Amino acid sequence: MNARRMVLSATFAALLAAPLTGAIAQTAAADKPHKVVFQVSDSDPAKWNLALNNARNVQKDLGKDQVAIEIVAYGPGIGMLKMDSVAGTRVTQALSDGVSVVACENTMKAQKLAHADMLKDIGYVPAGVTTLMQRQKEGYSYIRP
Amino acid sequence: MNARRMVLSATFAALLAAPLTGAIAQTAAADKPHKVVFQVSDSDPAKWNLALNNARNVQKDLGKDQVAIEIVAYGPGIGMLKMDSVAGTRVTQALSDGVSVVACENTMKAQKLAHADMLKDIGYVPAGVTTLMQRQKEGYSYIRP
Amino acid sequence: MNARRMVLSATFAALLAAPLTGAIAQTAAADKPHKVVFQVSDSDPAKWNLALNNARNVQKDLGKDQVAIEIVAYGPGIGMLKMDSVAGTRVTQALSDGVSVVACENTMKAQKLAHADMLKDIGYVPAGVTTLMQRQKEGYSYIRP
Repeated sequence: MNARRMVLSATFAALLAAPLTGAIAQTAAADKPHKVVFQVSDSDPAKWNLALNNARNVQKDLGKDQVAIEIVAYGPGIGMLKMDSVAGTRVTQALSDGVSVVACENTMKAQKLAHADMLKDIGYVPAGVTTLMQRQKEGYSYIRP
Repeated sequence: MNARRMVLSATFAALLAAPLTGAIAQTAAADKPHKVVFQVSDSDPAKWNLALNNARNVQKDLGKDQVAIEIVAYGPGIGMLKMDSVAGTRVTQALSDGVSVVACENTMKAQKLAHADMLKDIGYVPAGVTTLMQRQKEGYSYIRP
Repeated sequence: MNARRMVLSATFAALLAAPLTGAIAQTAAADKPHKVVFQVSDSDPAKWNLALNNARNVQKDLGKDQVAIEIVAYGPGIGMLKMDSVAGTRVTQALSDGVSVVACENTMKAQKLAHADMLKDIGYVPAGVTTLMQRQKEGYSYIRP
């Protein structure tokens, strides 16, 4: 089995094994020439909107196909991704525009939030801060709006 | 034409073609051992001054010739670079100290700001957030005061 | 003298020459697979606690031995490391958990703070912002809570 095939098989296995959004986002991200991760850790909705504006502008500027974008909400920023978030409609729009949006499960545990309390179709990571570290290691630029 | 000459020619062409400040800043930046980009995205003047203090301290600490510094103002931070900015005098000082200071034209469009509304001699970039991504890719450290 | 021995000698020399905490932290950091630097530059104790929570979560998530963590306090964030800091007990705990915590001496000079005014056992750097640049260059991820 050659390298390309192995990647395809791994991708297929990932699609079967993992929640759809996350797996596709990750697989596609590796191939994109630009990568950026946005940190949302403030409880301030103006910061949530700024992160969403930034993501949209980056897609407009570089082309959706050319840039992998991930928004990581944790700590006081977790409210951005709760069911009752004032930014809910815009988060859903970002998801359908191919932006990966993930919530920190460490924060959720601390705030007694279940997946059912969160916006539909977002992704989850065990620890937001570790994800932010990992993405930088993978070559993502880091933006903290 | 050897490599050095080609660089000199390219530099000369850039000087003719582009606004002076930006072209010189970029040409010189590539040769400096240290590089840092500061993000200003808060409407808080204390943050503007902190960014300017940071830039000055870095120049003092590493030597002006040893470090390329760029300050990128966007979103709610754009006020730092408006004509009536309370930090105007200090921005002008930073520019004359060789710091590159640029405003985000995406933000300016959204806030209906023209170049005439902005401090003299600053630079402009189409999208602040894309510039912040690009600089990190070029090896700049990122500081968000 | 082989490479490993030279490193050991250099380590030993560093232990003799430098304040203990800093030297050990730096020597050990170079060997760890994960590295992260946290910036604390707000006067807001909630941000201090968030940085400390983040550090603890990263240690829990990746394992203390697997991750070098440094917290750099400067500018309005310096209060985190003053003797009367509301986060004092937690800073001491972080230090004993192997987190490097350093104060910016530029900021201390500006605020007329002496080492005697600061929490015991923290480290010191001449300029916090230069340290944040340096760490990124060394491969540390950057997190600004």
